[in-house]
Amino acid sequence: MQFANNPTLRSWLTVPENSDFPIQNIPFGIFRTKELSPRVATRIGDTVVDLQSLAEARFFADLEAPVEAFAQAVLNPFMALGKPVTNAVRNRIAEIFSGTPDSGKQKLIHKALYALQEVELLMPVNVGDYTDFYSSREHATNIGTMFRGAENALMPNWLHLPVGYHGRASSIVVSGTPVHRPKGQTMPAGAEKPVYGPSKLLDFELEMAFVVGKSSELGTPVSTAQAEEHIFGLCLFNDWSARDIQKWEYVPLGPFLGKSFASSISPWIVTLEALDPFRISGPEQDPEVLPYLKYEGNRRYDINLEVQIQVEGQEAKTISRSNYKYMYWNLFQQLAHHTVNGCNINTGDMCASGTISGTTLDSYGSMLEISGGGKRSLTMPDGSERKFLKDGDTVIMKGFGEKDGVRIGFGEVSGKVLPAK
Amino acid sequence: MQFANNPTLRSWLTVPENSDFPIQNIPFGIFRTKELSPRVATRIGDTVVDLQSLAEARFFADLEAPVEAFAQAVLNPFMALGKPVTNAVRNRIAEIFSGTPDSGKQKLIHKALYALQEVELLMPVNVGDYTDFYSSREHATNIGTMFRGAENALMPNWLHLPVGYHGRASSIVVSGTPVHRPKGQTMPAGAEKPVYGPSKLLDFELEMAFVVGKSSELGTPVSTAQAEEHIFGLCLFNDWSARDIQKWEYVPLGPFLGKSFASSISPWIVTLEALDPFRISGPEQDPEVLPYLKYEGNRRYDINLEVQIQVEGQEAKTISRSNYKYMYWNLFQQLAHHTVNGCNINTGDMCASGTISGTTLDSYGSMLEISGGGKRSLTMPDGSERKFLKDGDTVIMKGFGEKDGVRIGFGEVSGKVLPAK
Repeated sequence: MQFANNPTLRSWLTVPENSDFPIQNIPFGIFRTKELSPRVATRIGDTVVDLQSLAEARFFADLEAPVEAFAQAVLNPFMALGKPVTNAVRNRIAEIFSGTPDSGKQKLIHKALYALQEVELLMPVNVGDYTDFYSSREHATNIGTMFRGAENALMPNWLHLPVGYHGRASSIVVSGTPVHRPKGQTMPAGAEKPVYGPSKLLDFELEMAFVVGKSSELGTPVSTAQAEEHIFGLCLFNDWSARDIQKWEYVPLGPFLGKSFASSISPWIVTLEALDPFRISGPEQDPEVLPYLKYEGNRRYDINLEVQIQVEGQEAKTISRSNYKYMYWNLFQQLAHHTVNGCNINTGDMCASGTISGTTLDSYGSMLEISGGGKRSLTMPDGSERKFLKDGDTVIMKGFGEKDGVRIGFGEVSGKVLPAK
Repeated sequence: MQFANNPTLRSWLTVPENSDFPIQNIPFGIFRTKELSPRVATRIGDTVVDLQSLAEARFFADLEAPVEAFAQAVLNPFMALGKPVTNAVRNRIAEIFSGTPDSGKQKLIHKALYALQEVELLMPVNVGDYTDFYSSREHATNIGTMFRGAENALMPNWLHLPVGYHGRASSIVVSGTPVHRPKGQTMPAGAEKPVYGPSKLLDFELEMAFVVGKSSELGTPVSTAQAEEHIFGLCLFNDWSARDIQKWEYVPLGPFLGKSFASSISPWIVTLEALDPFRISGPEQDPEVLPYLKYEGNRRYDINLEVQIQVEGQEAKTISRSNYKYMYWNLFQQLAHHTVNGCNINTGDMCASGTISGTTLDSYGSMLEISGGGKRSLTMPDGSERKFLKDGDTVIMKGFGEKDGVRIGFGEVSGKVLPAK
């Protein structure tokens, strides 16, 4: 167990009850203030810690973590240092902020602290390539049943490989960025020709994404066992989807403009190591998978997920509670499959899980599923009905694991739907 | 007409007959030598011109083109200067190397010249996002007929929008880079379970790609008229494809590992401006396209394309002659469609055309089409037969336009197939 993971550690910084960010978390992100240029940070409770400042004060000088890796507008150079270094930095941060503060260094440390509300959190990663998987059996079954009936819900390949597709990296934005309803081409039911206009079926997809730390070489697969070394950490991921655009465009080459207008991520990348306590076994995979997709140990994660919709001027309403454990294919299998053909991965690449749906209506990860393809409505606090998203709605996703009295979470990813431009 | 396009210009550098690189071309690329770090270059005849060196000698000092834009391992910073600057640099280069050499500056200029065989050409662009379209009607019809019969060859959306999908940027490599036959999961005909192993149906796809120069803002579409300002130039593109992997994986979310093991590009990016003389009208688009896909003027390009296969130790054999004019959707429509939902584009993004097939067997752009899905064979110079590619085969693609006695070309993109690792 890493030092930082010790459940008995307590920080001398204030950590509110039920915070996602106790001393055992120590995620990484990027912030700036009016005075400070963008830089690498972590968060403890509601305090943002300027790691560039700590690096300049030589707190990491013995760890092969140069100041330049922290004085950056993205985490890529820091992540590229490799896990031996980044984990050592995480443990050092746990040392600095747990136990009794070192009085000789108090001033230097306090200079690095900012209240969360004082800072602006930025997009943490420069995403080179972004891939979206489709790995929740419940989600694939729900969608497949809608399109092809219950008997043909899963395509023949689905139980043999983690189906995925390339997505658009340029339009991934950080939590808090509003999203304009996209315009595009759709074919209304019964129409003879397609029409152009704002999407009428705007949706979210509840996902998690992993971020690549260590790159791989073109031509060299990464095995399920090696994958751990390459995956830096995870974040929440809202894969905004325009269902009407997607439906008309996606045959035969897959989703394109129905997704590429925006995806939103939570600002803190929680390391794989911080999530260690939440590993669980399974699920059983039948039929048996090919050898390159086999894995050892507990490789799913028990992470509670929640989706809320906040209508303008109203309280947010929780409309779904799901869990990252509803993955038939785990992230190590996803990465092994992604690279089995020799495809190389680079620091900063992002792979999303696909929509994470549970087994019941109140655990589905998209409005498409919750509304049964537009057949059912949700009633919002102001009495209005929702089959899909309306302008002014804010979608908020949250996630955390909890074990031995320690809660490690992601904070949230939120995004408000603005009218089409 | 730009100065550099003047067909009467002649360079004082030697330009071999039928060279793709007369003084009217002036493409941009990246090279290095044993002594020199990677830097921006152009090519005239078989001479590579070190533009960093010319910039340092202040040949571009009055053009808002700083030396740093040339002292780079990729063209992105140069392209990001914008067309007013990059076109001015292109014209300045044409001035320097046409007419009578300026005797006062001879020494500085000669210091910047390298024989092609002395230098190593590098991947010219850092590709952020890569998109592959599917815009040759002949290709889509050929493939559709194979999969669904002649009557359902084109999907209902095909004549209404340029179908495209996101591809993998990390595995795009420069001409000359060998490509290992990928391994992966396939479902052999009649088998009950999928198998893992080297692809048996390795193919090329003859494509061209455009490179984005000027970025756009998230949420703001680029119109067909504005697209010209954003497209820096073009190159040849070999979209290597493993047909057996692709066939098993691609439903319902599109091509993934069947393509992501490698794509190859030619090393010189030929500017859109250099290709001006080869603009042609058409094709007629029926049904009428939606207003956002309409365009004015001549927007297709008459560029001859050729595919050769070279069996080890043999002469290369030309197996297809096609033309970039076989695009139903032109590149300006492709970019307008790509961004109509607000998707942003960044400097260095690459969009490939999709396989460019003509109307006859000897103009098809892939072995899948040439062999009729494996039903017909090509005979190679050594007597061996080809339905798909064999280990040791080198695929070579070439392209050029010719008008008023001026030939502007792309050189070639070549790649040798190595055995699976």
